[in-house]
Amino acid sequence: MGKQILEGKRGIIFGALDSKSIAWKVAERCVDEGAQIVLTNAPVAMRFGEINELGAKLNAQIIPADATSLEDLENLLTKSQEILGGKMDFILHSIGMSVNVRKNKAYTDLNYDWMKTTFDVSAISFHKLMQVAMKLDAMNDWGSILALTYIAAQRTFPDYSEMAESKALLESFARSFGYHWAKKAHVRVNTISQSPTITTAGSGVKGFTDFFGYADKMSPLGNASAEACANYCVAMFSDLTRMVTMQNLFHDGGFSSMGMAPEILE
Amino acid sequence: MGKQILEGKRGIIFGALDSKSIAWKVAERCVDEGAQIVLTNAPVAMRFGEINELGAKLNAQIIPADATSLEDLENLLTKSQEILGGKMDFILHSIGMSVNVRKNKAYTDLNYDWMKTTFDVSAISFHKLMQVAMKLDAMNDWGSILALTYIAAQRTFPDYSEMAESKALLESFARSFGYHWAKKAHVRVNTISQSPTITTAGSGVKGFTDFFGYADKMSPLGNASAEACANYCVAMFSDLTRMVTMQNLFHDGGFSSMGMAPEILE
Amino acid sequence: MGKQILEGKRGIIFGALDSKSIAWKVAERCVDEGAQIVLTNAPVAMRFGEINELGAKLNAQIIPADATSLEDLENLLTKSQEILGGKMDFILHSIGMSVNVRKNKAYTDLNYDWMKTTFDVSAISFHKLMQVAMKLDAMNDWGSILALTYIAAQRTFPDYSEMAESKALLESFARSFGYHWAKKAHVRVNTISQSPTITTAGSGVKGFTDFFGYADKMSPLGNASAEACANYCVAMFSDLTRMVTMQNLFHDGGFSSMGMAPEILE
Amino acid sequence: MGKQILEGKRGIIFGALDSKSIAWKVAERCVDEGAQIVLTNAPVAMRFGEINELGAKLNAQIIPADATSLEDLENLLTKSQEILGGKMDFILHSIGMSVNVRKNKAYTDLNYDWMKTTFDVSAISFHKLMQVAMKLDAMNDWGSILALTYIAAQRTFPDYSEMAESKALLESFARSFGYHWAKKAHVRVNTISQSPTITTAGSGVKGFTDFFGYADKMSPLGNASAEACANYCVAMFSDLTRMVTMQNLFHDGGFSSMGMAPEILE
Repeated sequence: MGKQILEGKRGIIFGALDSKSIAWKVAERCVDEGAQIVLTNAPVAMRFGEINELGAKLNAQIIPADATSLEDLENLLTKSQEILGGKMDFILHSIGMSVNVRKNKAYTDLNYDWMKTTFDVSAISFHKLMQVAMKLDAMNDWGSILALTYIAAQRTFPDYSEMAESKALLESFARSFGYHWAKKAHVRVNTISQSPTITTAGSGVKGFTDFFGYADKMSPLGNASAEACANYCVAMFSDLTRMVTMQNLFHDGGFSSMGMAPEILE
Repeated sequence: MGKQILEGKRGIIFGALDSKSIAWKVAERCVDEGAQIVLTNAPVAMRFGEINELGAKLNAQIIPADATSLEDLENLLTKSQEILGGKMDFILHSIGMSVNVRKNKAYTDLNYDWMKTTFDVSAISFHKLMQVAMKLDAMNDWGSILALTYIAAQRTFPDYSEMAESKALLESFARSFGYHWAKKAHVRVNTISQSPTITTAGSGVKGFTDFFGYADKMSPLGNASAEACANYCVAMFSDLTRMVTMQNLFHDGGFSSMGMAPEILE
Repeated sequence: MGKQILEGKRGIIFGALDSKSIAWKVAERCVDEGAQIVLTNAPVAMRFGEINELGAKLNAQIIPADATSLEDLENLLTKSQEILGGKMDFILHSIGMSVNVRKNKAYTDLNYDWMKTTFDVSAISFHKLMQVAMKLDAMNDWGSILALTYIAAQRTFPDYSEMAESKALLESFARSFGYHWAKKAHVRVNTISQSPTITTAGSGVKGFTDFFGYADKMSPLGNASAEACANYCVAMFSDLTRMVTMQNLFHDGGFSSMGMAPEILE
Repeated sequence: MGKQILEGKRGIIFGALDSKSIAWKVAERCVDEGAQIVLTNAPVAMRFGEINELGAKLNAQIIPADATSLEDLENLLTKSQEILGGKMDFILHSIGMSVNVRKNKAYTDLNYDWMKTTFDVSAISFHKLMQVAMKLDAMNDWGSILALTYIAAQRTFPDYSEMAESKALLESFARSFGYHWAKKAHVRVNTISQSPTITTAGSGVKGFTDFFGYADKMSPLGNASAEACANYCVAMFSDLTRMVTMQNLFHDGGFSSMGMAPEILE
């Protein structure tokens, strides 16, 4: 595209694990559009990931943070303001992980301690991030906060298990906190409900390949790619979308609006 | 009404605290319609409540159970089957409590340990109940499981605080587990999204009276009463509604479908 | 069931074409539950149908009415009150027909005159019916008006063509008029969004059998039958559901809440 | 902003009546972003409007077209391709008018001939436009078609009358035709559900000023302006949003996600 619609904006991108991550593509596109960013991920995730390459390439500093830790989030938001020279204009929350799914526990036999960890990492971290950012007054007026979600928050995909609840929780936090952010600093808070995406995280779910193909056929435009999602995030961080808030935005090639695709029956 | 459309059915009613409770009215109406029931509530809630009166009046046994305890739930479901002489045909989950609201913590300054207790009591208890019931094979074919919820799961009511997330979680559990219950035993799982109701629990929320009046004006039929809700629960427990599952059903005098009522502007 | 929960109630049932019709089953169940009814259908539909048999069996009079004609609707509502001895407690609108579908016109090549006839018959007839009933003051307090609809109003089923728009229109009329009926006489207005059903009308849609099988697999409880729908209509006509209004109620075995069923992939 | 994210794109803008019109602002912003456009409006509307000024200012030709006339739409799409030198990349449908509202007919006393005109102008025109454009193969791959709508399609605003149904119809056409456009040429079709806006058309509705104030208080960010809507349309026409289709997108400062705003009670 070559246009710089995020010129002068500062942001934080969570969740760039490797070059297949949506967050990785978002980071690239944001810098491409003129933004200055800080990258962050959980210390444990950083060991396996390739985030340092990305940081070097984008000239972006990396601040490890466990998103469930209030101290880590305070450190992240404080340092990011120092590094980037001011308050944030945008934040992307792209974090999700289910312990019960990883350990192959059936939905009818869940371990509740693991469920709590799942919710803490995948959803409550979003509230914590916004609460810390508000206490530190770390967002600029008319800023934009986004989290990535999935349509399992509205409809049942049995293999997605407790991640359905995590996403329902995440979207509810976006709506609830969106009210307070609007009142405080005209900051908007939205979630993007993305197609199934072939990432290192996404492909861990049971039967992912079959499911990816099903969703692709069911979506009139096909599944949305990580690159397309990055473009949509740029639009939502830009000043073109200032009055959109407390929304769950489907970025899915039309999947969410299909009842039945003739392509499936064939 | 005098008709007995729950004749021969057995059920468990959670949450009858006192005569203003919705669950209290549901218990009365179910027995009125020919059902045999067991009443249950948290041991701590029972101390303040008048549930013994209700049990005596309805000839129903009372089994104390902390709904966050798997052991208590196992005991409840096992004993209920012994007492009532068979599997359950229906269960009502009417439990909700927010520690942060009780302690007047602002939504932008939540205590996360308290949030976990809130979710555990108000929502995760519903998954636990269904998981224990499934493991014990405690539901009859074509049974009906209901939980009471509130429209804050879809729209923001700032004073409702983290209860919005609790209800989003609760409704998601209903959808997700509804799939598994349907496959196992044709059991349906739904939530009823009830008008604000003047109960001992409901009226604890800040500014409740003003809000109750607002909702009453906004609802073309007015707010639905606890008695009306009990009638709706009877319909959802009866065989008239066997194919309704994984739904959130608004019982609110039309509130959820109003954009603006002329009565509010006047 | 044998209980009479519609005792003393009077109603009008539109759309009983033959014994496979949902309206036929509703008529049978309403009478079974103690209601007195009048049957009606379009004069042209009555020629092919077997409605006279039904009338004889249920001891119900039949008043032919073209639901697009204000005169016919006035006659129907006036005569029904005379025959049944008072105002109506319930009405079922079960009318739908697409000229473009019948004539195999593609959705991208619709005939707009035919579209108008489709909307007039399938949706505007519902507004006309309610407008005439209100002008004649023909509904009892706390009455119940229902129309049958389909999930194509929310999601795209390409073969359903302009019927998607008809149903969107129908459901909107229910919400809008529901406000006015509530204010006038506490009458509730709802739509029931029913599974695909093997009726003479339903099976006319292209590829219906394949589609019926798809929906059946996608629905955790399977497709809801016409008999089950009749039971749900009885519940919605009864006094158990007085505070439910302006809602679209899915009666579909869970189809509407499924994102993907493992049964489809197998 | 100054960036040109619609460079090289061609589009048609319906409905620029005067400088208060949303479509007027969209036209200005599109040209500002590098697009070449054709303006169109109904011949009768053009007499009262100031569209010629806008055309001169934007160096855009004006082609009068009655959007209910297939011939006029054919002429518009054919000439636009000649003038702009190729197929269209985007189209904005911003047309709405209710005869019954203009003539102060109550919703319970509608004139059905007028209703047909209302639907024809406000909604069926959108299907006609898309059908003609598809037959003429007038859209470029990955193009974007938008229509402006209002939340009355989902919730009841009694004074909005039959426009609720017009918008429900319009949104359904977007979903249904969106499937076919995706399959034919990866064109996306969406509706933007805009805040009440002080335009010459919008302010014609009864009690508009009071209502505008109510919506403004209910929306955490306040009502979205026509200028903000124009920015959002630019985002939806740009390549940043290619995989968003068949969606109804709320651009309303958060109104649609609010259950109750404390600001209303005060």
